[in-house]
Amino acid sequence: MIPYRRRARYFRFRTPTGIRRPVASSKKKNLLVYIIGAAGNVSVLVQAGVTALARKIASPTGILTENPEFAGAGFRGFDRIVFGGTEIREVTLAESLDIYRRQNKFIEDDAMKAAISALEKNQKNVMRRIPPGISSVASSLGLGKLKCDHPREYVLAIQSHIDSLKRERGCDLAVVVNLASTEPARGDQISKWTLAEFERDLTKSKPANSASSALAAYAAIGAGHPYLNFTPSVGSEIPALTMLAERTNAPHAGKDGKTGETLLKTTLGPMFVARGLNLLSWQAYNMLGNTDGQVLSEEANLKSKLVGKDAPLRKIAGAGAHLKTSIDFVPSLADQKTAMDFVHFEGFLGSKMTLSFTWQGYDSALAAPLVIDLVRLLDVAAQRGESGPQRHLASYFKSPIAYEGAHDFHVQFECLLKYIRSNCSRGSSRS
Amino acid sequence: MIPYRRRARYFRFRTPTGIRRPVASSKKKNLLVYIIGAAGNVSVLVQAGVTALARKIASPTGILTENPEFAGAGFRGFDRIVFGGTEIREVTLAESLDIYRRQNKFIEDDAMKAAISALEKNQKNVMRRIPPGISSVASSLGLGKLKCDHPREYVLAIQSHIDSLKRERGCDLAVVVNLASTEPARGDQISKWTLAEFERDLTKSKPANSASSALAAYAAIGAGHPYLNFTPSVGSEIPALTMLAERTNAPHAGKDGKTGETLLKTTLGPMFVARGLNLLSWQAYNMLGNTDGQVLSEEANLKSKLVGKDAPLRKIAGAGAHLKTSIDFVPSLADQKTAMDFVHFEGFLGSKMTLSFTWQGYDSALAAPLVIDLVRLLDVAAQRGESGPQRHLASYFKSPIAYEGAHDFHVQFECLLKYIRSNCSRGSSRS
Amino acid sequence: MIPYRRRARYFRFRTPTGIRRPVASSKKKNLLVYIIGAAGNVSVLVQAGVTALARKIASPTGILTENPEFAGAGFRGFDRIVFGGTEIREVTLAESLDIYRRQNKFIEDDAMKAAISALEKNQKNVMRRIPPGISSVASSLGLGKLKCDHPREYVLAIQSHIDSLKRERGCDLAVVVNLASTEPARGDQISKWTLAEFERDLTKSKPANSASSALAAYAAIGAGHPYLNFTPSVGSEIPALTMLAERTNAPHAGKDGKTGETLLKTTLGPMFVARGLNLLSWQAYNMLGNTDGQVLSEEANLKSKLVGKDAPLRKIAGAGAHLKTSIDFVPSLADQKTAMDFVHFEGFLGSKMTLSFTWQGYDSALAAPLVIDLVRLLDVAAQRGESGPQRHLASYFKSPIAYEGAHDFHVQFECLLKYIRSNCSRGSSRS
Amino acid sequence: MIPYRRRARYFRFRTPTGIRRPVASSKKKNLLVYIIGAAGNVSVLVQAGVTALARKIASPTGILTENPEFAGAGFRGFDRIVFGGTEIREVTLAESLDIYRRQNKFIEDDAMKAAISALEKNQKNVMRRIPPGISSVASSLGLGKLKCDHPREYVLAIQSHIDSLKRERGCDLAVVVNLASTEPARGDQISKWTLAEFERDLTKSKPANSASSALAAYAAIGAGHPYLNFTPSVGSEIPALTMLAERTNAPHAGKDGKTGETLLKTTLGPMFVARGLNLLSWQAYNMLGNTDGQVLSEEANLKSKLVGKDAPLRKIAGAGAHLKTSIDFVPSLADQKTAMDFVHFEGFLGSKMTLSFTWQGYDSALAAPLVIDLVRLLDVAAQRGESGPQRHLASYFKSPIAYEGAHDFHVQFECLLKYIRSNCSRGSSRS
Repeated sequence: MIPYRRRARYFRFRTPTGIRRPVASSKKKNLLVYIIGAAGNVSVLVQAGVTALARKIASPTGILTENPEFAGAGFRGFDRIVFGGTEIREVTLAESLDIYRRQNKFIEDDAMKAAISALEKNQKNVMRRIPPGISSVASSLGLGKLKCDHPREYVLAIQSHIDSLKRERGCDLAVVVNLASTEPARGDQISKWTLAEFERDLTKSKPANSASSALAAYAAIGAGHPYLNFTPSVGSEIPALTMLAERTNAPHAGKDGKTGETLLKTTLGPMFVARGLNLLSWQAYNMLGNTDGQVLSEEANLKSKLVGKDAPLRKIAGAGAHLKTSIDFVPSLADQKTAMDFVHFEGFLGSKMTLSFTWQGYDSALAAPLVIDLVRLLDVAAQRGESGPQRHLASYFKSPIAYEGAHDFHVQFECLLKYIRSNCSRGSSRS
Repeated sequence: MIPYRRRARYFRFRTPTGIRRPVASSKKKNLLVYIIGAAGNVSVLVQAGVTALARKIASPTGILTENPEFAGAGFRGFDRIVFGGTEIREVTLAESLDIYRRQNKFIEDDAMKAAISALEKNQKNVMRRIPPGISSVASSLGLGKLKCDHPREYVLAIQSHIDSLKRERGCDLAVVVNLASTEPARGDQISKWTLAEFERDLTKSKPANSASSALAAYAAIGAGHPYLNFTPSVGSEIPALTMLAERTNAPHAGKDGKTGETLLKTTLGPMFVARGLNLLSWQAYNMLGNTDGQVLSEEANLKSKLVGKDAPLRKIAGAGAHLKTSIDFVPSLADQKTAMDFVHFEGFLGSKMTLSFTWQGYDSALAAPLVIDLVRLLDVAAQRGESGPQRHLASYFKSPIAYEGAHDFHVQFECLLKYIRSNCSRGSSRS
Repeated sequence: MIPYRRRARYFRFRTPTGIRRPVASSKKKNLLVYIIGAAGNVSVLVQAGVTALARKIASPTGILTENPEFAGAGFRGFDRIVFGGTEIREVTLAESLDIYRRQNKFIEDDAMKAAISALEKNQKNVMRRIPPGISSVASSLGLGKLKCDHPREYVLAIQSHIDSLKRERGCDLAVVVNLASTEPARGDQISKWTLAEFERDLTKSKPANSASSALAAYAAIGAGHPYLNFTPSVGSEIPALTMLAERTNAPHAGKDGKTGETLLKTTLGPMFVARGLNLLSWQAYNMLGNTDGQVLSEEANLKSKLVGKDAPLRKIAGAGAHLKTSIDFVPSLADQKTAMDFVHFEGFLGSKMTLSFTWQGYDSALAAPLVIDLVRLLDVAAQRGESGPQRHLASYFKSPIAYEGAHDFHVQFECLLKYIRSNCSRGSSRS
Repeated sequence: MIPYRRRARYFRFRTPTGIRRPVASSKKKNLLVYIIGAAGNVSVLVQAGVTALARKIASPTGILTENPEFAGAGFRGFDRIVFGGTEIREVTLAESLDIYRRQNKFIEDDAMKAAISALEKNQKNVMRRIPPGISSVASSLGLGKLKCDHPREYVLAIQSHIDSLKRERGCDLAVVVNLASTEPARGDQISKWTLAEFERDLTKSKPANSASSALAAYAAIGAGHPYLNFTPSVGSEIPALTMLAERTNAPHAGKDGKTGETLLKTTLGPMFVARGLNLLSWQAYNMLGNTDGQVLSEEANLKSKLVGKDAPLRKIAGAGAHLKTSIDFVPSLADQKTAMDFVHFEGFLGSKMTLSFTWQGYDSALAAPLVIDLVRLLDVAAQRGESGPQRHLASYFKSPIAYEGAHDFHVQFECLLKYIRSNCSRGSSRS
């Protein structure tokens, strides 16, 4: 580990507050969850959920970190979590939740009332800034104003916004979370850059890097904040940022939350392998109607997404299997993501058999509790002085960063349980 | 461990050849697979498959013990396996496979030709005897002749048949496998009996025990043969036989092979738990058209089956979930078991979501490779001097005997892998 | 047609207001829709829908009589429909809709607000009386009080209630609609009775007839009101009441609204026939969680329902097909009836193929617009002087009364279109 | 109708045998079924089926013209049908059926044996010629040899081949059937051509027209043979050929046989309309693994196909519905076409509901009996002196030529029934 003084020079844009680790009294202070894409569906459901949980008007369904097995790990209470973030669109947090609920309807009246009130308060913590090089669809959703001239401007804006929010809201830590729409897959230049090359590009008015997710990740990790990339965008997975995270001791995790169909693939795929059955074909047809679906109707954005959806199953099924994944925008479904999968497999003596399934789930309602879990797990990791890619969080992601284990959900989940068990016992030995 | 001489008195009906453990040269001798229900679909597919594998005209799809990871365990070659058994019906092995193939069609011409030839040879190793107290449907399938007057007669007939086959075919071990149709659930009297009580009942002309599966298990275990119960019938799970197995050093395993829908339940159920999602309802509609389905159309037989199908999911889903499993006889499906499951679950903020799936698989073709695996694993266990219930085989069963772990297929499968890994390394250190 | 004076003696219990046919000015007067089971889901949705349509805050999705093709038939406007009825349970109309919406959530805020206000007003038009001989489940839902001592008391109560409501609300016609829970199938005694025998039973304190639906049908038809039986209960289908309807000139229709899965069966079944494909098996698994489902959990009630669900398909598929229909109570689904059907069929050269489908629809929201259509069609029929079973309404029912045509939805629907076309042209020629 | 002499000049390439209508004794003479794409799956199944039916070793499942209702129409017996045709690939008819059966397995041993023997005899009636301008995939399937230099050569080859086969096999009529792989959609030039323009292009060595299906249709219709286009290719639907058919009195029908998923769409779609339900989205995912699927993996060929699949539903569902159809090549499925459709619809009071279905059928086994029906119906039409597009056959096609009625399968089927009923009575009055 390089000492703090040497690390400092890597963060030219870092604001004076620098990197401060939470102290022992952390549970009494607040945690800032700083969301890129603050007015998106997942973001407003995260905020609505934390509000309802803090007021005890909702049960923590879907939140593993509330499970008794996880109790000893020292997760921060829901009433200690405050929200801020940045958003490119004009829509407010409350408007966004209101639209969501009108289309998806499941939120109860009392939870909704409390959420709207909280979102109206959180609104002042949301900064509208548009990074350079944003895709056309995303741009058409916003106003095209407020665009930063060069990457450095965007990075500094985020860093100083986080610092001021932390001060105002009495936070000892900020976790930066990327929940913005999937950005286009534009080749792999930045995936080969060194940190120096990455930083050189930051000051250009026509930068080569068009991945704004990597800019926000740089802003977060450069300032030592734990960082979570829940989207298929680049985020922190490039070598330049992995190296940066080592130097600033920032724990980070990603990418691409495993909410629905890939969860099923990485659960069912290993079952076929464990029975020695031969996967012939796996056709996966996804339909969704939310903003995510709208953005994916742009070809390049879709490509980013599909790469992540195909890879785990390919590793499970082997080279011989015929695999296909598609995503269609079906507006009437709103957030109710529907996946129809057809699995053709071969058994004993050449017998051919099928498994087909239909999964219908509210995609953002599946994502939100995972984000809450991940934020709490990163919070605990930071408190414990852990840094770099958090491999034990692989079960949460379609494309877990720096993870080389089996794409088997149950194996990945066992890793998390082992981490928690060792943390809990250490935790209890301390207390 | 009690010495051989003391054990001997527990087997009043045991034939003189007694219990001989395979010696180091076992791989060069044959293994007798002695099947109760020798002309059933699963049985003839097992024989057809082993024949095709021995002649290398089929690939070992579905057979885990052929997986490279299992290579060091010292499984016997397919050409060292010989078959015998008992059957209540008049149908021959070859006729049974012919009927099966006309209804289900997937077996290739060359594999079929080889299988018919092998089954015609195996026919002479099949003894027709009908145990006392058989159910009406099963009885109507047979001729009602050849019925034993009391249980002891049936037990002795099996034991002496096995002994003579072992001698004739140069076998150093026999594994007894129950593949007979599910017998009715007739209360739990025998589940409370001591071994002495069980044995007292054997000589009665009107025995209280009506579970002929337990008689065959007694015959097997009493003579020290490894025993496998692949059906939902009682088999070796009662205390009297568990105790007997300890005394004769017989390894045994069961019950109720996990071929299709329960495999999915124990794979998918834990996924919901691992995501903190709340299972509201799980409706499971099974359809099948083979002999198994026909026997299940008798209410009491169905009950035996459903108990096993419901239990694992109940343990996974908790008391609050609404669960239902049904099995319908749909003749046109023949062996192509079709399960339609509907899963209703609750996520974050009260959102309700669904997963529905349709599984369509040839039930006997799913079962056969599991039987081959289990026979080989019991063979190896016997060679290694293991005895009693084989808990590491839990992943193969709906109701694993003496297993108290999680009804989570992947957890169960990890147990098997651990067993194999430790066996393999020990095996290799020996050679 | 027998003259009014002669008819009169058949209605010993008929109240003085007697049978008055609507006059030419009918469109300016109101129509009373008098509902048996007024607080049930379908009933409150009918009332909510008519309110929203009258106020033009909902679109008439699902209401055929609003289709331009039906325009000339002279249907009464939604603002001319008023509601009354009888209910055995204590729950109010508004409470019932409130519970429904909390479980099913789809109704928009403004439609809900208008509906609750209307239902609160309609409440005073609901009479609580319990007929003799009601089933145990239905009885447990109510309070067991307010029970009529003999059938005649119940009949008279309904007739006088209708008369007073008609007077109060300025109605020129009342249509009586049975939306009460399915009553048990208790043999076919009353299906053999003459009208005299039926009427003899009315005064007994221990009547032989236990079908309270037939009592309400008698009350309606006896007083000349058009009658609609939307449930699988007996209603007006027995010869005694068919004869009565002829004498009082009452048009009537039923039974058992064809809302979902049977709609699909009578649409898809004829397709297989029209292609010469051979239906081997049709397994139909229905799940629902509303009061209807709860009542069906009682075996005898379920039987009433299943008879109607199986018959149409049996007629379509022929004697050789293997058919099965089941209905399960799955509380978490609430009104969201879910049907999973598996169809196995044979094609050319013995090829076996499958069609499986999953239908998920809000059962009461499917039923309500059909009830509104039927009420309007009976209103028009009464105005046109039609009487007896309305065979052209067969497309609306699982078991259309006195219908002997094909159980082919499209054929039945063509009948309705022909009726409407001839009505429309005659209507327009008049005006 | 223009007299024969005037017509003659339109058929420059017509061979001397010209146009001879079957006479009254037609049932005693043979019918030549001349198939373009003679070695394709559908073609060999048609031949196998007719053979099995003639020998009475198969039942006529899927063949409507064997239905008693159709009995009076005077269809030719199966033993009076002989086969010939043309094929671009080297594969023989018998090889093609053998490959088909190894992949799809359902054909019984005796039917197979008879079919192979018949196909071996039919082989000598198959001419290998490759039209100019064939697509790259189709070309790679063949050898690239035997290619005609210009369209006229191809037309003449077909016409003279038919004439000589008719003579040899004692046929009074030939029906030409297009069963070749779907050809690419290459713009609509020829759809605007006059007959003169079409004929001018025939002699060019670099013709503008690349639709070889239109060349074969020209050859057939030009010589007055009834013509059937069972594929999505152009065939006879262009004005030039429609005009030609009027002049030569040739009846013709097409295009694109309605075998599976579109059959369901045109059956279920009208059901939603008849219930006033609002179709929001209909996503249709098709998978298949036969040659058809392989050819469709080429983008332009797929486009031809999808146009036909989408149009009927668009007309049913209206402009507001979100529709999507895709076809994927999934080799492991072979001929077992699998369609997964998801239908999202809106009901009363804004309720959203779903119907999803999975259809799994052997595509060629669904097509073959339709082809047999159509051939017999064209035979009867020709005998009755009918000509031009056969609108009463609309129920058989995805894109019925010159049909302007509703895309409602049951309405289309009623048209066929009416035609048959009037034919039957006329037929019986004659005899």
